[in-house]
Amino acid sequence: MKIKPLADRVVIKKLEAEETTKSGILLTGSAKERPQEAEVVAVGPGAIVDGKRIAMEVKVSDKVLYSKYAGTEVKVDGEEYTILKQDDILAIVE
Amino acid sequence: MKIKPLADRVVIKKLEAEETTKSGILLTGSAKERPQEAEVVAVGPGAIVDGKRIAMEVKVSDKVLYSKYAGTEVKVDGEEYTILKQDDILAIVE
Amino acid sequence: MKIKPLADRVVIKKLEAEETTKSGILLTGSAKERPQEAEVVAVGPGAIVDGKRIAMEVKVSDKVLYSKYAGTEVKVDGEEYTILKQDDILAIVE
Amino acid sequence: MKIKPLADRVVIKKLEAEETTKSGILLTGSAKERPQEAEVVAVGPGAIVDGKRIAMEVKVSDKVLYSKYAGTEVKVDGEEYTILKQDDILAIVE
Amino acid sequence: MKIKPLADRVVIKKLEAEETTKSGILLTGSAKERPQEAEVVAVGPGAIVDGKRIAMEVKVSDKVLYSKYAGTEVKVDGEEYTILKQDDILAIVE
Amino acid sequence: MKIKPLADRVVIKKLEAEETTKSGILLTGSAKERPQEAEVVAVGPGAIVDGKRIAMEVKVSDKVLYSKYAGTEVKVDGEEYTILKQDDILAIVE
Amino acid sequence: MKIKPLADRVVIKKLEAEETTKSGILLTGSAKERPQEAEVVAVGPGAIVDGKRIAMEVKVSDKVLYSKYAGTEVKVDGEEYTILKQDDILAIVE
Repeated sequence: MKIKPLADRVVIKKLEAEETTKSGILLTGSAKERPQEAEVVAVGPGAIVDGKRIAMEVKVSDKVLYSKYAGTEVKVDGEEYTILKQDDILAIVE
Repeated sequence: MKIKPLADRVVIKKLEAEETTKSGILLTGSAKERPQEAEVVAVGPGAIVDGKRIAMEVKVSDKVLYSKYAGTEVKVDGEEYTILKQDDILAIVE
Repeated sequence: MKIKPLADRVVIKKLEAEETTKSGILLTGSAKERPQEAEVVAVGPGAIVDGKRIAMEVKVSDKVLYSKYAGTEVKVDGEEYTILKQDDILAIVE
Repeated sequence: MKIKPLADRVVIKKLEAEETTKSGILLTGSAKERPQEAEVVAVGPGAIVDGKRIAMEVKVSDKVLYSKYAGTEVKVDGEEYTILKQDDILAIVE
Repeated sequence: MKIKPLADRVVIKKLEAEETTKSGILLTGSAKERPQEAEVVAVGPGAIVDGKRIAMEVKVSDKVLYSKYAGTEVKVDGEEYTILKQDDILAIVE
Repeated sequence: MKIKPLADRVVIKKLEAEETTKSGILLTGSAKERPQEAEVVAVGPGAIVDGKRIAMEVKVSDKVLYSKYAGTEVKVDGEEYTILKQDDILAIVE
Repeated sequence: MKIKPLADRVVIKKLEAEETTKSGILLTGSAKERPQEAEVVAVGPGAIVDGKRIAMEVKVSDKVLYSKYAGTEVKVDGEEYTILKQDDILAIVE
């Protein structure tokens, strides 16, 4: 089973706290917007603006920081994912 | 009797909970926006932007995830449907 | 006496509850937005966007579903009508 | 003395209740937006969008329905008028 | 000393109540937006939209009606003026 | 040390009350928006709209009126400045 | 480990108070928006507008003033950073 996000949406899977610690990143932030680290598992085809499709900037397997409260959580085949707009992704971590 | 949605609207029919379980998808989410699985039963011709019609990305019989509180519910010939904008559809499930 | 709506406005006449029942459509919905069935009696020339007039998608005598609280009600020659923007029409029913 | 409205504004003069009755139109509506019948007495040159002036759709002496609370009332030479944007006019009555 | 308004701003000087009476205009209106009669004393060069400057529609010495609460009052050399955007001017009075 | 404002921002330095009096300008206004006289000390390169940079309309040493509550105050080398967008400047005083 | 901000986002590192004092800048401001001095450590590729990527105006190692409450704080390898949009940067300090 696959989730194919529409337009400029992205499906991400949160990285476990352990994994977060291993990568050396600890995330803090205001209560209003706490960033999270996650891995991209599916990428939409891009939004269409003025009749042209805008290429996406993230790709599958990118590690990303995103606003914790952005997007919608879904559970597929027992795994939890988040579907959010690419614009809610703050940065790629390498 | 047929419902033909206008512009970029889509008519969907919620999948029964049983069906949801069979497909292996369990949906969770914040109280604010709980996604739902549904099947597309009718698709509008697409919105017109700058004089050009934008092709729709979903098609009839697609299984989709959408925001639970999006759209308007109608009952036609005893069946319940939801009419919503394509932008309220999060992803196609295959 | 005729009502000629401006731009992308449409004049509709609500179908009676009896008529609604005959056509086999029962409408339900959230308290926030209850759809209604109506017949289109007049159609504006279309909005002008970027100097081009956008053709309307509904035509006189179409049966339509619309958001109950959209538009403005007027009474002409003893008949009640609603004037609303085409974008408040959800779908055409055939 | 003349009032020349700017851009897409229109000057209208409310039709008296008697006159409204003679024309056979009785207006009802929600408390939020009660339409009114009026006659157009002056029309602006049209708004400028993307460097092009958009032609107005109403003309002097048109009878129009408009949202009661739209616009600004002025009194000129003892007569009361309302200045409003053309987009607040719902329809022309013939 | 001169005030040169920027972009699509206009400097106006309110006409005295006496003068208002002489011209035969009495202004009424809702508490929310009471129009005022004033004379234009300076006009900005016009806003720039899509790289093109939009010509202004009012000129110095025009008598105008404007929304009372629009703009900012300044006192220069003992005289009171109001600086407002042209779009807050409702009409030119001739 | 220099402050180089970005895009369409401007750095201004308030004129002292004494100086304001000498120039013959006394500023009044609503509590909501009290204009201030200041001198421009740095000008950004201009905003980019549709890929084109829009030339700025104010230049260094212009005396300007601006909305008192606009912008952000900073202290550099013991001097206080305000950084604001050019659109918050009402007029140039000559 | 590197943070690569998306679109028109910038990663900055706050300058210590000591450093702020050494550079001779003391920052004041309204409670609503207190500017901060920081150093740019990473710059996104720029936003895409109308299909064209807009070049960024700040570059790595620029000293900048920004609105204190803008952006999201993250901690990477024990260091705290802020990710914000370039438009929340007020000025470059030289």
